[in-house]
Amino acid sequence: MAGRCRGGGTGRRAGFKIRFWQQSESSSLSPGTNIQQAISVRTMNFCSHCGQAVSLKIPPGDNLPRFVCDDCGTIHYQNPNMVVGCVPVWRDRVLLCKRAIEPRSGYWTIPAGFLENRETLEQAATRETYEEAIAKIDLGSLLAVVNVPHASQVHIMYRAELVDGKFGAGLETLETGLFLEQDIPWSLIAFPSVRFALECFFADRHDGRQEVHVTAVERIKY
Amino acid sequence: MAGRCRGGGTGRRAGFKIRFWQQSESSSLSPGTNIQQAISVRTMNFCSHCGQAVSLKIPPGDNLPRFVCDDCGTIHYQNPNMVVGCVPVWRDRVLLCKRAIEPRSGYWTIPAGFLENRETLEQAATRETYEEAIAKIDLGSLLAVVNVPHASQVHIMYRAELVDGKFGAGLETLETGLFLEQDIPWSLIAFPSVRFALECFFADRHDGRQEVHVTAVERIKY
Repeated sequence: MAGRCRGGGTGRRAGFKIRFWQQSESSSLSPGTNIQQAISVRTMNFCSHCGQAVSLKIPPGDNLPRFVCDDCGTIHYQNPNMVVGCVPVWRDRVLLCKRAIEPRSGYWTIPAGFLENRETLEQAATRETYEEAIAKIDLGSLLAVVNVPHASQVHIMYRAELVDGKFGAGLETLETGLFLEQDIPWSLIAFPSVRFALECFFADRHDGRQEVHVTAVERIKY
Repeated sequence: MAGRCRGGGTGRRAGFKIRFWQQSESSSLSPGTNIQQAISVRTMNFCSHCGQAVSLKIPPGDNLPRFVCDDCGTIHYQNPNMVVGCVPVWRDRVLLCKRAIEPRSGYWTIPAGFLENRETLEQAATRETYEEAIAKIDLGSLLAVVNVPHASQVHIMYRAELVDGKFGAGLETLETGLFLEQDIPWSLIAFPSVRFALECFFADRHDGRQEVHVTAVERIKY
């Protein structure tokens, strides 16, 4: 099974040619749906520096096509984003959030979201847990690094403990709950990376260890 | 010392407010200098979707200012980038590259560069090693995750072994060499994250282990 917890596995698929321009999608974004910011490779029509038209071309010294301004020459690079989260625990239970927004509204996730500029991974995990679950945490060790190449994302998950056992539901969350391992709603988990992080968390807890798990997940058609 | 190898350390500075708009820099990029793509937070003047003017404002449901199109409403998110590399070894020596480009031209680094869209971390480390050092590698385990918040970057480094001991100098490299630990030019290492990765690599090798090391480094004035 893709994404099944395995310790320290690393993909070795060098030579895979990145042809993002063949798979471009529009990205006219609606306010509040910032999940879209990295799922699609963003098409560009105009230079954000001077407002003139851009063309997709391979700049000198480069080997991938970029949007380049026909007028001022600015090169507009596009690169993957990081999604950062944690598995927060209170005693022997894990805190999960039921998503209030697409994608995967109504499905369960761990608190996670996009890393912001000038922020560390640890700050992002802590901030997202407060924003989505109104919960304060003591952040623990790095748990999982998950490549999500079809979305041009890397998901990075930590272990964490709730500070005082209090939690709630943020704007992007329908409800929040503490789950024993046997009660995790596996068939209703929102994303493969979340499933992977939870599987690794429980496997390590059984074995009394805290390892870092690396994997890659493929696109799933829901 | 900031960035000194320490196993599993995680920063806990939640509550740090991100005010990237106070620190914005221009990003009119020259061809070939793509290192600039993520060092500066990019100012925007025009909407890349419709070409009209943008304003910096906090969108509904958000809590950070974004560039938003005054005409079509597209929100232009900006997020950190990943720099991916590895410590390639051949027998008891480590492969280093002397940089041919700014920043830190003339200083030594490990092969590393920006993760591209639709690419995994492992593909990027392998690709960058070939591009910068004309060297084929067998990629090993995850070595280091380094927060570089002042540059809105996260650096991710792996262990690796040269396949056949062959290497060269790519377009962004002046020269390449294999170094015993006692010969590493520590005072001429290009970036704190590279120093951290090398220190962790050698410390783990001495102890016969392969751990994942997490840290944050601060801006250094050269």
